[in-house]
Amino acid sequence: MPGKNAFYAQSGGVTAVINVSAAGVIETARKHKKQIGKVYAGRNGIIGALTEDLIDTGKESASAIAALKHTPSGAFGSCRYKLKSLEESRPQYERLIDVFRAHNIGYFFYNGGGDSADTCLKVSQISEAMGFPIQAIHVPKTVDNDLPITDCCPGFGSVAKYIAVSTREASMDVASMAKTSTKVFVLEVMGRHAGWIAAAGGLAADKEGDLPIVILFPEVTFNRKKFIARVDAKVRKHGYCSVVVSEGVKGPGGKFLSDQGLRDAFGHAQLGGVAPVVANIVKEELDLKYHWSVADYLQRAARHIASKTDVDQAYAVGKAAVEMALKGHNAVMPSIVRKSNTPYRWAIGMADLEKVANKEKKMPASFISRDGFGITAKCRQYLAPLIKGESYPPYRNGMPRYVVLKKVAVPKKLSGTFNI
Amino acid sequence: MPGKNAFYAQSGGVTAVINVSAAGVIETARKHKKQIGKVYAGRNGIIGALTEDLIDTGKESASAIAALKHTPSGAFGSCRYKLKSLEESRPQYERLIDVFRAHNIGYFFYNGGGDSADTCLKVSQISEAMGFPIQAIHVPKTVDNDLPITDCCPGFGSVAKYIAVSTREASMDVASMAKTSTKVFVLEVMGRHAGWIAAAGGLAADKEGDLPIVILFPEVTFNRKKFIARVDAKVRKHGYCSVVVSEGVKGPGGKFLSDQGLRDAFGHAQLGGVAPVVANIVKEELDLKYHWSVADYLQRAARHIASKTDVDQAYAVGKAAVEMALKGHNAVMPSIVRKSNTPYRWAIGMADLEKVANKEKKMPASFISRDGFGITAKCRQYLAPLIKGESYPPYRNGMPRYVVLKKVAVPKKLSGTFNI
Repeated sequence: MPGKNAFYAQSGGVTAVINVSAAGVIETARKHKKQIGKVYAGRNGIIGALTEDLIDTGKESASAIAALKHTPSGAFGSCRYKLKSLEESRPQYERLIDVFRAHNIGYFFYNGGGDSADTCLKVSQISEAMGFPIQAIHVPKTVDNDLPITDCCPGFGSVAKYIAVSTREASMDVASMAKTSTKVFVLEVMGRHAGWIAAAGGLAADKEGDLPIVILFPEVTFNRKKFIARVDAKVRKHGYCSVVVSEGVKGPGGKFLSDQGLRDAFGHAQLGGVAPVVANIVKEELDLKYHWSVADYLQRAARHIASKTDVDQAYAVGKAAVEMALKGHNAVMPSIVRKSNTPYRWAIGMADLEKVANKEKKMPASFISRDGFGITAKCRQYLAPLIKGESYPPYRNGMPRYVVLKKVAVPKKLSGTFNI
Repeated sequence: MPGKNAFYAQSGGVTAVINVSAAGVIETARKHKKQIGKVYAGRNGIIGALTEDLIDTGKESASAIAALKHTPSGAFGSCRYKLKSLEESRPQYERLIDVFRAHNIGYFFYNGGGDSADTCLKVSQISEAMGFPIQAIHVPKTVDNDLPITDCCPGFGSVAKYIAVSTREASMDVASMAKTSTKVFVLEVMGRHAGWIAAAGGLAADKEGDLPIVILFPEVTFNRKKFIARVDAKVRKHGYCSVVVSEGVKGPGGKFLSDQGLRDAFGHAQLGGVAPVVANIVKEELDLKYHWSVADYLQRAARHIASKTDVDQAYAVGKAAVEMALKGHNAVMPSIVRKSNTPYRWAIGMADLEKVANKEKKMPASFISRDGFGITAKCRQYLAPLIKGESYPPYRNGMPRYVVLKKVAVPKKLSGTFNI
């Protein structure tokens, strides 16, 4: 008789490698059929559990699961749906346990960021309290790299590589045109309140000063005068300058720089990004020709330029999550532990979810250069190994062959529906 | 005694593969030292000739020139500087001839788009008239793919591949989040007045209908009502939709859609892209959550995801340009001639510059689907081979190894300066 079934779900913003972690979970579980019966995935994340919309991953071929290792996005669907405290979300937690009980689910693998770590922890605690204990393991994922304890987060290395490569390429483009055309290029990147992704723009230069790059971190309050002076100095020296700006940069009043109260000709409010705002500041103050880009989803979906280190780590945390469950661990998260920088060596550690949930790891001050516009040697040492190695998807007719799963639904066992 | 020297210059917006054409010119010239002495490159394009700022490409090693084949941007510098008619720009043309005479330059290889073809033609005509005949050969380059006669333009295949891959990746990202988050993703692409790059977004789906994609071409006047109906239908059917919008899309009055008279809270005019405008229309009319991206320079600098077909053709036109010069041709351009679709076969042809200069090739009506928002099977057949094959640059420590040339200046021979 096989062991209890497992439930796997993808949560929050997806990444170029979250499916790699899914493959790590599923392939490892398949090797332990005595202890783990079926692996069910939530269709659209935790919503799939709440609505009893489970996907039987057993219906997917070994090659389809293997192909997840080179497929971006969330193959089972993800969601932005936060479960709050037991008091506030009691019906949701009770429903989760009902569904898990109905489908004999004893393992809960939740693949997400900080909010998901919190949910994962609560599922563990509440299932215990409700008499149907579930081993809940959090599988770390976030492009923002803002989870504590783990040295880095799967998903980050690939977006960092994308931003580093794109900034290098676009900077070279601008350099060749600067004599008569664009002198300042502004690239807006993700990262919410943490500047990790913006910092990756600093890797566009092999060493400080190779390319003129000015970084705007959310950790540093925007100072218009200092910023303009920095850009002006770079343009005078190099003839051009690239600005990498984090979406989360705020002005002195604590208001997002992107929030400029833009209105169209009819007075309608318009939502813009921060890149055009920064570009307009450059134009207003220095009257230089500029271009700007907003990478948005392109950066976190770019499996075509994923970091091999990141791919390897994403798989390792998925695999380790299952192994931890098999060893009886509960309310934990596999973490990445850095063993050495040169050569870069890492191992899997285990973090207590109590210490992970709801904490946000921002860039330490020691990673930001004294002027506030660049990365330090220490930061470079931290970032460099994370983008190392290429891991190309297979191509057919010039296009990457990304897999689309069958996603066969598991027959429902509960009567009635649950409104989310 | 070696033959006359050659002058090579890069013109207009650079691409992921313009340096491949430079390598084609230089490597081929180096094989014919009896006929072609030195190859001088203009620093920052034609400005380098006007200011007698020539780069001696002979000072670059064979491996540096070979590395141009995997290096994006314009390695010698490019410029946006249009020479007008002989009447309007006589001093410029006379100066060019003076510089060419001083440096014994008998070959003029001009690597650019439509405007450059015109300049190239004029240099040929005027040098003849001024008694120092120059063989002027135009080397085609433009991401916009808008040159006539040639089946496609080097530079386009790679940007098309970038847009097709990025649209596929971002669409999969949106698909996995659409249940609770973003339902419409808008990607702004280049292309000026021609919709070729936007059309490449259609390749994100292997066949029509695989992925819900709505394309806004500059060739089709924007119709707000029809557009919203199309997006609405796609979202209802698929749960989400991607919109690929060309920067050059115009509304019924002939005004660019991007020109919305945006003003910030202080009433200052703000320059925005067309992607946020389209996203705001979606929000206003359908109240759907959206994200938008502006690829800008990232798309045309993305050597990391270049098309092998494009790389091969970019090299071939550079090589052919030299060979045509050696055969005594003048005022011509190597073109790409499509021999067959399946299998895709192409050859180098020769186009008369009179027929190339100042003409813009837009998307034919037969390439745009009847509803105006997609590509036809015929268009797909045209585009598909152009993105075929991968041509990765070498990497070191996770970053592409792009070459930076020495760019040693040729000693000046003329007294006096020339103000551009």
